[in-house]
Formats: sequence, C-alpha cells, structure tokens
Amino acid sequence: MKVGDKNYVTVWLEDREVCMIDQTQLPYRFEIYRAKDYLHTCEAIRTMVVRGAGAIGAAAGYAMAQACLEAPAGKYQEYISKARRDIEATRPTAQNLFYATEAVYEAGMKSADDAVKRAKALADENIEEGKKIGEYGNSLIKDGSQIETHCNAGWLAFVDHGSALAPIYRAKRDGKNIFVYADETRPRSQGARLTAWELKNEDVPHAIIPDNAGAWMMAQGKVDMVIVGADRIAANGDVANKIGTLEKAIAAHHFGIPFYVTAPVSTIDFDCKTGDQIDIEERGQDEVLYQEGPDEDGTRRKIRVASPGSPAMNPAFDVTPASLVTAIITEKGIAEPTPEGLSGLK
Amino acid sequence: MKVGDKNYVTVWLEDREVCMIDQTQLPYRFEIYRAKDYLHTCEAIRTMVVRGAGAIGAAAGYAMAQACLEAPAGKYQEYISKARRDIEATRPTAQNLFYATEAVYEAGMKSADDAVKRAKALADENIEEGKKIGEYGNSLIKDGSQIETHCNAGWLAFVDHGSALAPIYRAKRDGKNIFVYADETRPRSQGARLTAWELKNEDVPHAIIPDNAGAWMMAQGKVDMVIVGADRIAANGDVANKIGTLEKAIAAHHFGIPFYVTAPVSTIDFDCKTGDQIDIEERGQDEVLYQEGPDEDGTRRKIRVASPGSPAMNPAFDVTPASLVTAIITEKGIAEPTPEGLSGLK
Repeated sequence: MKVGDKNYVTVWLEDREVCMIDQTQLPYRFEIYRAKDYLHTCEAIRTMVVRGAGAIGAAAGYAMAQACLEAPAGKYQEYISKARRDIEATRPTAQNLFYATEAVYEAGMKSADDAVKRAKALADENIEEGKKIGEYGNSLIKDGSQIETHCNAGWLAFVDHGSALAPIYRAKRDGKNIFVYADETRPRSQGARLTAWELKNEDVPHAIIPDNAGAWMMAQGKVDMVIVGADRIAANGDVANKIGTLEKAIAAHHFGIPFYVTAPVSTIDFDCKTGDQIDIEERGQDEVLYQEGPDEDGTRRKIRVASPGSPAMNPAFDVTPASLVTAIITEKGIAEPTPEGLSGLK
Repeated sequence: MKVGDKNYVTVWLEDREVCMIDQTQLPYRFEIYRAKDYLHTCEAIRTMVVRGAGAIGAAAGYAMAQACLEAPAGKYQEYISKARRDIEATRPTAQNLFYATEAVYEAGMKSADDAVKRAKALADENIEEGKKIGEYGNSLIKDGSQIETHCNAGWLAFVDHGSALAPIYRAKRDGKNIFVYADETRPRSQGARLTAWELKNEDVPHAIIPDNAGAWMMAQGKVDMVIVGADRIAANGDVANKIGTLEKAIAAHHFGIPFYVTAPVSTIDFDCKTGDQIDIEERGQDEVLYQEGPDEDGTRRKIRVASPGSPAMNPAFDVTPASLVTAIITEKGIAEPTPEGLSGLK
C-alpha cells in the first residue's frame, strides 16, 4: 500500500537484508529498519518493529532464509538449527511464526536458495490472501458507504492489503465514494494511530472517533456497515478480537447494520468449537492508566491519564457471538455462521 | 463527601470568601480555591474551578451574595446589578447559574443578609436533592451488586452527594458490599480522573475500565446494573448524557441488565417532547487527538495520541431513547418512562 507516493509492503528481503517498516516509530515517524543478519531480524520481531500475525510470519520466514544464506560452510546444519530455535523464541505465542519458520527451515535443508524462495512464497501468499479478502469484501461495499472499523486490521498487520481494511482499499481504488470511521480503540489506540495513518496514506476519507461515539454515529444513520478483523475464530463463527468489538457488534445488531468480520482462513480454529473455549488475555493496568506520545517538541512522553491510586482492568480481547456476525470474509469466500457451523467457504 | 479523613462540599461561603475545591487540579492535586470577592468567584466559574450544573449554580448564588456583602453604601443597587450581569456572563449556557443568580439577586434587594441566606438555602437544596437521589437509588441496589457507571455524575458536579454516585455512596455507608466499574469516558476521561478519585476517597471498591470493555464485563456476568447521570431529559424520558451512554444502554438492554438514569427533577425539560429536539454539541478535535496529564516528574504535558494529519469527530453527548431506560431516579421518586410520559414522580 501507499506511503506518501511510494508503494510498500511491511517486510521484504533485499539481498541479504530483511527490511521492515519500523512500526515502533509509527505514526509519528516513517523509518525502514534494516536487519543485516538473522539475529538482527529476531531482535526486530522481539521488539515489535513488526507486529500482526501475517507480518510476523513473513519476517520469521525471511529470518530463517537469512540464516541459511549466512550459515558458514561445513556448519550449515548446526547453524540453521540454532537459528530456528532463536527465531521461535522471539514471540512464542505467534502461531504464524512457527509455521513460517518450519516451512523455510525444511526448504533450507535442500539449499539456501530454496529457503529464500520459500520465504518469498510465504510472503506472497499472505499478500494474495489480503488481496482476495479485499475483493470479496469489496463486493459488499456500495458506492457512498460509510464504514466503521475497530482497532487496526490493516496492511501493517500483514505483508500487504490487510484484512478489515483490504475491502476498503479495494473499494477506494475502484473509485467508490466511501468514508471510514476509525474507532480510537483504547487502551492502545491502534485505530487512532495505525488505522488513521494507513487511511491517510491511501487517501481514504476518514475520521477518528472516540470508542464511545460508535452507537451514536449509528443512531444518526452515519454508519452503513462495520468491518473488523479477528484474532481467532471458533468453528461455530464466534469471534475473538480486540476489546470493544463485542460492543460494536451489539450496537450494529440493535440498529440493523451489517457487521462483517474479515480474516484469512488460517485464523479459523476448527478444533475450537465455540468462543467459550477461547482464553482472554488480561494485560497490564498501565496501558489504561498512562498514555504515551510526542509532546509539542516531538519528545516522547508518558503521562498519567487516570486518578492516582485507582486500579484498572484491561481485558485485551472479547468474544463476539456468531449470532451478531453477519458474515466472515476470507480469501476463500464469504462464510456465514449457521447453526451447523460456517457455510460458504470454497 | 470524604477527601482523606475530612468531609467536604464542592463550594461554600466562609465569612466573605467563596471557597471551592479546585477541580482544574484534580485528580492530581487537592487544593481549595478562595475567592475574596465576587469578581474572583466569576473568574473561578469561567475557568472551570467549579464544574457541573449543581456546583456552578451554588457558586453563582454565592458570588451574587458576595456582591451584596461588598457593595459600597450608596451604590448598592448599581453594584449588585452590574455583578449580576458579570456573573451571568461567566458560563452563558449553564441554566442553573441564571436561576441561582436571579434568586439571590432578588433576596439581595431586601438586604445582603437575605442574599446570603438565600444562597446558602440554594446550596442546601442541592445537597438535599443529592441525598434523596441517593436514598431512592440505594433502594434498588442489592448487597453484593456490581455497578457500572459512565463519566462523572458524582458529588464534584453538585454541592454534595451527586446523582449517579449518590446511591453508591449511600449503599456503601449502609454497609452493602458493592463494586463499581468506572468507564474511562474518553475523550475527557472524567470517569478515570474524577469518578475514580471520588470512589477512592469514599473507600468504594472499584476499577477503571476502558470504554471498550463494558459489554465484555456484562457478557461475563460482572455487571448487575448500570447507573449514569443526565445532562437533559425530555418529557418522554429520552436522556441526553455524555457520549457513550447510548452504547452502554444498548449493551445493558442486550444482556437484560437494568439501566438507571439519575438526575434532579430540574434536569427534566417538560417543554422538550422527545430527544429528537435536543441539539448535541460537537466539541473540538483536539480532545480526541491529544491527551494531557502529569509526566513522571509531575510536570503537566500535552501529548499527541493519534496519527498526525487525520481529523477527528467529537460529539460530546448522545441521546438514549426512553425504551432503553429502566427508570429515572430523582429526588422526588423513581420515574418510569411509559408511552404516556414519565410516571411515578411525587
């Protein structure tokens, strides 16, 4: 997608360097982080220079390929085995990371060239998935639509295109007249920071709204559809996603507004029967009690935004029941939750 | 209500000084602002040292009484007429301010002593209203209740007791075991800043939650009731209140959780038939795009919390339809919205 006048992906290989958009600097500075060797790429994954399942997976695949390229003659096997362990230790809960590392490691058993090809193919697959989600999703967007989205399920979380924002970019590039309401998405404000940054760069007309304003926008007829991403989807269509997704789904249902979830099919956990089986991460209080950002001089500051001495709760995700989900848009088609499970996937 | 070990009201008269809890310093510093003359009190009202309809009204009444006390002999009438105009110009949209200024001015036509008595009586009436709201509301709170509240409708917005928090204080003082979820209430974070500060000082067990977390808490059975305040109530029971109130009301309705609105009867505008006739103030974008608060050293900072170059929308209030309101708790009883209007007021 566009940043200024140029097209970018979040992570790519240039000679032996893994290049990544440094997401720790966004939205205030746009910088490319260049990792000269696999350990350097590991550091980038660990420190969240890349974030989002798709982007992490691609970065891990490239790190594994880097290791194959730089392994010393005679110690190839030993070197790439250690590298695999190092890469897998960076973000031990990221499912895509293990998948990518294993796939590229196995290709690397043949040759470093095979490893590089496999890593590039994995990144390309991720791009292709986003593109397809964009096309399927776009088929649901009418000209003139006003769309609300929550958190950041944009191209920054993938290699390109994204999930929730992919249909929006497709619609915009097809010349549809659309407007996007980006929920701020407290406490980490990924909507105000990342989604807004993406939309501005793609010239999509938009406004940031406080999370509190969603239902009121709906009540006034200003929202025609809601599109969100997903962290994990149960076999019955229950959706775990960023905290606040449930609240938007209930409000959309109340006003009869379609509520769409977007995700690659790999996000659907067919072994997980319902959302009741999904554990919700409770994160630290400080994300609620403090905010970070640049002051007038551009110096990053951390300030308190709550009364000292009061505790906070910070559930990071919630589960939206399938009954509130109009459809799930994937790269393999548009699935509808039914009492028998998800239907419509090719 | 309590601050540390002492009982306070938000505004009171001490000799000829109007004393106010300086709400521009809360929750980080507790300071009493002492206004030596009526112009000084005007300045305090203008700069929001006092805020909230009830507290502003009481401060305006005291300012008018101050003017009567300090008026020079021979120029009494001229002095207090000018003072009335000055006081009314401080916050021209605050209805209670005009009511209080007029009442005390008319008492002052007899004597300065009458003005002081009238101003004190007005403040006492406000305290009594809050107390009654607390008693009626408390009758709805069961031992062990978990209560969600939005924004700050506490004693800081009145002279004492408050509206939404009054029943909570009454329940706590009666020995009921309760827990309060205080919605952060972006963009101005009155929940995280003021409600949390009040609750901590009254030793009410509580936690600040992101506005996004309300529905998820309800889904898990952690919320037994929602209590909010009101800025204006239409004759049919539609409620204008801080942005996000509507979203909580929809979520509570979805989960079958009672949703109570609290307000003095003076908040009900019987000339306003429905919420459709209530204009909603759109406030400046900067409240959404920036946050203010103390850094580690206690220095107040303003930081950017959104992507530069993206606009924000900031509707300050929303309208919750009467159909989503279980009851309206006033100082004259508990009113229920019915197709014929509000019933149950004494």
